[in-house]
Amino acid sequence: MKNKGLLIVISGPSGAGKGTVYDRILERAPEIQKSVSVTTRLPRAGEQEGVHYYFKTLTQYQQMIANGEFLETASVYSNYYGTPKAAVLGLIEKGRDVMFEIDIHGARQIKARYPQSILIFLMTRDFEVLKERLIKRGTETPASLKTRLSSAKNELAQYELFDYIVFNDTVEQAASDVLGIICAEKSRVKANEAAIKKMLSN
Amino acid sequence: MKNKGLLIVISGPSGAGKGTVYDRILERAPEIQKSVSVTTRLPRAGEQEGVHYYFKTLTQYQQMIANGEFLETASVYSNYYGTPKAAVLGLIEKGRDVMFEIDIHGARQIKARYPQSILIFLMTRDFEVLKERLIKRGTETPASLKTRLSSAKNELAQYELFDYIVFNDTVEQAASDVLGIICAEKSRVKANEAAIKKMLSN
Repeated sequence: MKNKGLLIVISGPSGAGKGTVYDRILERAPEIQKSVSVTTRLPRAGEQEGVHYYFKTLTQYQQMIANGEFLETASVYSNYYGTPKAAVLGLIEKGRDVMFEIDIHGARQIKARYPQSILIFLMTRDFEVLKERLIKRGTETPASLKTRLSSAKNELAQYELFDYIVFNDTVEQAASDVLGIICAEKSRVKANEAAIKKMLSN
Repeated sequence: MKNKGLLIVISGPSGAGKGTVYDRILERAPEIQKSVSVTTRLPRAGEQEGVHYYFKTLTQYQQMIANGEFLETASVYSNYYGTPKAAVLGLIEKGRDVMFEIDIHGARQIKARYPQSILIFLMTRDFEVLKERLIKRGTETPASLKTRLSSAKNELAQYELFDYIVFNDTVEQAASDVLGIICAEKSRVKANEAAIKKMLSN
């Protein structure tokens, strides 16, 4: 009796360390699947169809939107990026866990289209630390820094969208917390109902 | 901003390994508190008041029941055993986690009197394994074995009372699963609401 897999979403403001924590989780739990996005941008050198992205024309992409084929879709600098629903739900049905690292708009779309998704908000312990991290990256102008901090506050204010909040004190601890959440979600009575009923029916 | 502690209940049928898993969790996470029970039975050699038990007379105990001072209470072979509510909730208010190892009747009482409790059902992967373990203990007659297995099935049928089910394949894995559940519960957005609101108000 194979349980369904989980759809796990890691979100959080710029500077909170989503990408680093996400990569560390996948190193420690390589059985978790990354989802492959669909995009309208052209392949870069070395990028392979179905591995890095599914490459589509704008017309194809718009048709996919019209067909409701996306768990989430967004446009960034005039290119589209989206998550194909069928591929992800197919993995989940087979019992595989799929994890996303995505901004809050994507997280909201995924929750709306697949309410069983587990949404984790990754955040620094306070805004001071977030500010320091953004400054350290050295990529922010004073104006963009201000915008990012204000966006971060705006995102945290939407905390009720999320199931969990993980404070990124260290990458290792944050990764452990997410793995603990995944373990707990797999131990939910609701997630094991079919197996329990089978045990009871014997 | 200190979050409240958790009240964690480990329950499950005889033979599932509650005691062993409970002890292993406390070894790995010594910061978790055991609750000290109140009892009407006489102290055995070496047992200290307030460490092993709070020792009470039958009259005192019955007064405590009448006052609603227990999270759960039960009688075993004409002695009473119970969990004092004030002591446990006091620890939880201070942010300490308190863990119980208790039978399903106790678990049900605790959930009724403190609905935020986290109830974990510890079970073997199937009833065959449970039977083998009970036989290995060498303490069961054929009749008592039959009773225990039938009780176990009856307990599992009450799975909806529980939040989580942990399969005790190995003690180490089961302890890790419970620690994962505790970590996840501490990461719930609801458990961190006060801290989040404080961050937003600055």
